[in-house]
Amino acid sequence: MDFVYSAKVKDLQTRLINFMEEHVYPNEIVYEQQLNEQESRWSAVPQVMEDLKERAKAAGLWNLFLPESEYGAGLTNLEYAPLCEIMGRSLIGPEVFNCSAPDTGNMEVIVRFGKEEQKEKWLKPLLAGEIRSCFSMTEPAVASSDATNIEASIVRDGDEYIINGRKWWSSGAGDPRCKIAIVMGKTDFNAARHEQQSMILVPLNAPGVTIERMLPVFGYDHAPHGHAEITYENVRVPVENILWGEGKGFAIAQGRLGPGRIHHCMRLIGAAERALEFLCKRVQERVAFGKPLSSQGVIKEWIADSRIEIEQARLLTLKAAYMMDTVGNKEAKTEIAMIKVVAPNMALRVIDRAIQAFGGAGVSNDFPLAAMWANSRTLRLADGPDEVHRAQIAKLELKKYQ
Amino acid sequence: MDFVYSAKVKDLQTRLINFMEEHVYPNEIVYEQQLNEQESRWSAVPQVMEDLKERAKAAGLWNLFLPESEYGAGLTNLEYAPLCEIMGRSLIGPEVFNCSAPDTGNMEVIVRFGKEEQKEKWLKPLLAGEIRSCFSMTEPAVASSDATNIEASIVRDGDEYIINGRKWWSSGAGDPRCKIAIVMGKTDFNAARHEQQSMILVPLNAPGVTIERMLPVFGYDHAPHGHAEITYENVRVPVENILWGEGKGFAIAQGRLGPGRIHHCMRLIGAAERALEFLCKRVQERVAFGKPLSSQGVIKEWIADSRIEIEQARLLTLKAAYMMDTVGNKEAKTEIAMIKVVAPNMALRVIDRAIQAFGGAGVSNDFPLAAMWANSRTLRLADGPDEVHRAQIAKLELKKYQ
Amino acid sequence: MDFVYSAKVKDLQTRLINFMEEHVYPNEIVYEQQLNEQESRWSAVPQVMEDLKERAKAAGLWNLFLPESEYGAGLTNLEYAPLCEIMGRSLIGPEVFNCSAPDTGNMEVIVRFGKEEQKEKWLKPLLAGEIRSCFSMTEPAVASSDATNIEASIVRDGDEYIINGRKWWSSGAGDPRCKIAIVMGKTDFNAARHEQQSMILVPLNAPGVTIERMLPVFGYDHAPHGHAEITYENVRVPVENILWGEGKGFAIAQGRLGPGRIHHCMRLIGAAERALEFLCKRVQERVAFGKPLSSQGVIKEWIADSRIEIEQARLLTLKAAYMMDTVGNKEAKTEIAMIKVVAPNMALRVIDRAIQAFGGAGVSNDFPLAAMWANSRTLRLADGPDEVHRAQIAKLELKKYQ
Amino acid sequence: MDFVYSAKVKDLQTRLINFMEEHVYPNEIVYEQQLNEQESRWSAVPQVMEDLKERAKAAGLWNLFLPESEYGAGLTNLEYAPLCEIMGRSLIGPEVFNCSAPDTGNMEVIVRFGKEEQKEKWLKPLLAGEIRSCFSMTEPAVASSDATNIEASIVRDGDEYIINGRKWWSSGAGDPRCKIAIVMGKTDFNAARHEQQSMILVPLNAPGVTIERMLPVFGYDHAPHGHAEITYENVRVPVENILWGEGKGFAIAQGRLGPGRIHHCMRLIGAAERALEFLCKRVQERVAFGKPLSSQGVIKEWIADSRIEIEQARLLTLKAAYMMDTVGNKEAKTEIAMIKVVAPNMALRVIDRAIQAFGGAGVSNDFPLAAMWANSRTLRLADGPDEVHRAQIAKLELKKYQ
Repeated sequence: MDFVYSAKVKDLQTRLINFMEEHVYPNEIVYEQQLNEQESRWSAVPQVMEDLKERAKAAGLWNLFLPESEYGAGLTNLEYAPLCEIMGRSLIGPEVFNCSAPDTGNMEVIVRFGKEEQKEKWLKPLLAGEIRSCFSMTEPAVASSDATNIEASIVRDGDEYIINGRKWWSSGAGDPRCKIAIVMGKTDFNAARHEQQSMILVPLNAPGVTIERMLPVFGYDHAPHGHAEITYENVRVPVENILWGEGKGFAIAQGRLGPGRIHHCMRLIGAAERALEFLCKRVQERVAFGKPLSSQGVIKEWIADSRIEIEQARLLTLKAAYMMDTVGNKEAKTEIAMIKVVAPNMALRVIDRAIQAFGGAGVSNDFPLAAMWANSRTLRLADGPDEVHRAQIAKLELKKYQ
Repeated sequence: MDFVYSAKVKDLQTRLINFMEEHVYPNEIVYEQQLNEQESRWSAVPQVMEDLKERAKAAGLWNLFLPESEYGAGLTNLEYAPLCEIMGRSLIGPEVFNCSAPDTGNMEVIVRFGKEEQKEKWLKPLLAGEIRSCFSMTEPAVASSDATNIEASIVRDGDEYIINGRKWWSSGAGDPRCKIAIVMGKTDFNAARHEQQSMILVPLNAPGVTIERMLPVFGYDHAPHGHAEITYENVRVPVENILWGEGKGFAIAQGRLGPGRIHHCMRLIGAAERALEFLCKRVQERVAFGKPLSSQGVIKEWIADSRIEIEQARLLTLKAAYMMDTVGNKEAKTEIAMIKVVAPNMALRVIDRAIQAFGGAGVSNDFPLAAMWANSRTLRLADGPDEVHRAQIAKLELKKYQ
Repeated sequence: MDFVYSAKVKDLQTRLINFMEEHVYPNEIVYEQQLNEQESRWSAVPQVMEDLKERAKAAGLWNLFLPESEYGAGLTNLEYAPLCEIMGRSLIGPEVFNCSAPDTGNMEVIVRFGKEEQKEKWLKPLLAGEIRSCFSMTEPAVASSDATNIEASIVRDGDEYIINGRKWWSSGAGDPRCKIAIVMGKTDFNAARHEQQSMILVPLNAPGVTIERMLPVFGYDHAPHGHAEITYENVRVPVENILWGEGKGFAIAQGRLGPGRIHHCMRLIGAAERALEFLCKRVQERVAFGKPLSSQGVIKEWIADSRIEIEQARLLTLKAAYMMDTVGNKEAKTEIAMIKVVAPNMALRVIDRAIQAFGGAGVSNDFPLAAMWANSRTLRLADGPDEVHRAQIAKLELKKYQ
Repeated sequence: MDFVYSAKVKDLQTRLINFMEEHVYPNEIVYEQQLNEQESRWSAVPQVMEDLKERAKAAGLWNLFLPESEYGAGLTNLEYAPLCEIMGRSLIGPEVFNCSAPDTGNMEVIVRFGKEEQKEKWLKPLLAGEIRSCFSMTEPAVASSDATNIEASIVRDGDEYIINGRKWWSSGAGDPRCKIAIVMGKTDFNAARHEQQSMILVPLNAPGVTIERMLPVFGYDHAPHGHAEITYENVRVPVENILWGEGKGFAIAQGRLGPGRIHHCMRLIGAAERALEFLCKRVQERVAFGKPLSSQGVIKEWIADSRIEIEQARLLTLKAAYMMDTVGNKEAKTEIAMIKVVAPNMALRVIDRAIQAFGGAGVSNDFPLAAMWANSRTLRLADGPDEVHRAQIAKLELKKYQ
């Protein structure tokens, strides 16, 4: 057991930190300006993003996320964790390095379960950052915390599958470059409870696919990516588009959601670190009642608790990543469930303290704190609410004594 | 001591509840639609609001907030509390009844400290719901949690005062009907610490008043009222516009902020009640893992804790209102400080639980939960951050044993 | 609605406060010394207690707890609440005024459901403070949070009932003056779920009653009263000893537990108030890092939060008492459940903060803080664990929307 | 970076786990019985303890704590952590393996700063488990959270030092085998703030050393070791007894308290693990409302949160131990401070949940839960209160941005 990053990781950390400081942070405001100046906030991705992507590619900081694959950079989950954390310090960071949600999770699925032709058609442009993808699982009509509630249907008809259903929170579908969706639906409503579901690739321009509206998150539109409500009405795709096979939806989800979940956690740690940095700087600059805010005991307690909570969440994330690398995503399910509960709640607390220290500036958009908070809040729900993960952890714990 | 509302209050409660159900809730969505359909979200107040105001006036549910004044409805703070709570159940509610922030607090100030001519000019149209007002106190350049930090200047020049300063979070200034600001600044930078400040009436159309921008709260613009950053540059107003007198700014603030603060708390209780209602209904409709969410022990605990916290916050608010009525706003300062800490934090917890139970729907705008949350979050800062109120409470408690 | 105590209550408050200061606090240490000096901690009640009782009787501060009965002092629950609170400031306080648990609850039961002969035999000496009583409900073999789990049997045999069962946490049974138990058992294991139980009076000197051992609470023995594990083995009592009638055990419990529960809550508020007083005094006396502890922001936050939490718990207790007086114990069940959750948790937080401020002295017995904490901790379990009360509150809340 | 224990550690873990199950847990009750049956609880150490120590020695599970010393077992702090955790699962565990507080910390001090003769005289019998030691630092008259407040004096007089002062919480001094104290006092009241203090070895049988009384902890006497209040009145010891040198007291404390603190944390993790195990077993055995307690959602949440919190505390402890091994105790001060805040609070939460699930049994001594809780509670104070550690963490964090 040891707690030191490898030389390779340390090198990448330094390069990423420098890149963020030089190129990403100063362009956060540029990105927002370009977004507001273009035809509509949904019409295009700001040019600055494409420029940053080129720079990142040139700097060798591209597609760092993909373990155990010839397509990736050859990093394990454990090696990727401290790097992903750095990207997560900015809300526009992950995309710059082609490491943003939901694409990294989707790419992992296609790498593992896609056919060669599909890799050619979808994976390669995704890896190149030319197109983006979305994931259509959650449905507005049912409690999707229980994935067996899903009602969308995937019905075989000769050489095709016909897809019908209404999905929402298909994040990224607003992006004009978003071309492909992974859709979860039921191929057999009468099969065993966890074998009814399948996942299938659906091009977003297929007839019958309609983006009904984009959903805001605490007032944020998250343009141009956004969160779409999509109807799939008699959408036809070739049978090859099914991933792995009929009834494998749940099994894929278990595999897919592991990496997706932990990537979110890594980013949240970065967000919390940046919030704490903002906080520490601010309270040393501002004076109230005759002394800097940093000399207030209550604020010092916020700082200490934040440092403690971040540190613990990071260690648990690293441990989970290590488990994924060594015993596999499925065996690491307790650790993944734990970090999925810990990271968003930790980030919410840390960011909220920073907001409080900033006063009115904290709830505005002059600093990224409020936006980070809203983003973190969704992650107590996305990929399973806290309560479902806790129930899972308890079940595994109780089993030890049965 | 007894805990029953008077017949007069019960009657008004019933009428308000009915009015909300019949006219306000169904029009929340209409209001938002009209806002989005007009020239811009800032160009006008949706017509439905004016219609609702006329209805409320006709129903005798108008200006219920003003105690001890011929201008008001003759209700005490204690009588107003359960009514204001009902209005607070909808974000568009208070304005319907001419009881919204910051106008109620501003009207109280003008009633108590304004000259007859000013009452004629500003108070009457405010009471009629024809114009609106804002309150310019907080400044971006300093930690405004310490009000002595304020840097705006109010300098006498013959029969006029010249005002210079930059203020933000002047809520309501975006409203096209907003005509008058109460501005806090310093008339004497060398006076005793709490006698430097004065409050003065400044028409928003006075030369030198510039609305620089509107600040968002989380991602909400709060149009058409909004929160303005305003520069006052060599703004000249007649000497009569000073309220009470030079150096009385702090004393007025103490009087003004009491009612303003407690009104916010009353509304927060209503918001929390509505969130709990949403939660209770939702969990009985939705099914996961084979049974309604309402049968989950964790969710039942949320409901119980919410009911407990709301009940306690309401009792403390009523007690504070009772103290204001009986010993005066100044003597009631501990109670006001306590409820100012309790109510926003309580509302945030209750609403957050509802959001969690709603899943994705909770963070979107399909329900008012996320917007209520963002609104409540600002109230841990507005009118003084929690920490300043806690310090005040502790100081008074410690004094008992000195 | 108003929040002021009546003149009668204010007068009793003053007299009680003075009595506590003059007679009770200074004798806390005397009581403990006499306990340690006598033959054993269980052999007798310290003489100082009998002296204090005589004084309290002489001062007219006796049996204040009993509402709606010729036997009591004619106070309502609402009037009694602020008085009971004062008694609760000392762990030896309630007994001084003949208002201690479990006797007050037991006396209420005998007043309401006892026959005249029983009142003569047991109630009168209890009211005179000559004997004491215990309540045998909880059983070690089952989860007694679900009262239907109870396994003790009460079987009719001619003119007698035969009682068999093992009970524990029969508090007060260690007291040499404890003469009578109210025992809960099942008269009909096949009746409807809430009609199987009955309550019956059992003299502690009846053949077959054995005190097996006294249970400690944390490391406290709570001598000489203590908490007994008792076996009832073929104990025979006359049929008249049944209270109200067979199958009425649950109904009585609902009535009995209301007052018993709220009395605990009133005392806990007093305990918390005293802990806060200890805290406020200590932090003004002690100096660390060059200034009094009271100037530390974190400690000021503890004080403010304590004041806020006490105030809210008190208001909720008063409201619950008011409901008991006006709509009856049964209809007040939500309020009673709420305060039963709130008060112990509040007291634990407040006392724990005081302990922390006192350092090592706080966990020792030099101050009553640690003992108060342990006592409060049991009240998250006694008379039903928090979780059962929360489930009850949630059930009633959900019912509003069914 | 990796998260797997070495083969050596795994082997020791297995042996320790087996030893605990075979020899320690079954003898917890024997220990308590022997204690109660002997002349007094303070007259001797129960024979079972000496027997267990012989067994542990024979099994090669002895003195595992001492890193970087010929006297120890050659384990690093990181290697020792998971072993110490196992010992900490029982309150009588650490002494069995000669790894109990305050002896391990004291032995480290003598190893590092003692002279050869002192090692011969005190260290060897301590390592052999023949004698025990105490640490006299805290004083009743001052806030000892600020160590500069200490008032005991150590005055040179020829070849001797004369010690005067009143100390308390000298844990272990009740043990009849306790022979030696490390006393902290001031050799120079006028030196720089952190150079006034010295540490000195004082035999407990030196004239002038008086154990005034033993202090209880939440009612527990912790016999036969206990917590002593000791007066040192003109106690004379040879000059050689000074450790390291005059004015080095603070520097030693920094070194000493690191290991002492982290050993406590390791044990607390073990205590929490055992409490969780108790909880998981109990809730699967007990039935309420028709189903096992383990099927209650609220209890499942307790289990999940406990697992999460334990896991995080363990990782942080291991990281801190790793830092102590690699950069030294002084450089690891942030990590040590963090874990010192985290571990006791975590243990208190976990144990408290177990207590709640056990009902009345939880607060009694039928299970070690209440005793574990009381023990953990003292560790939010011992070796510095949480607040001092948090202030230290915040100071170091803020420094990053100065």
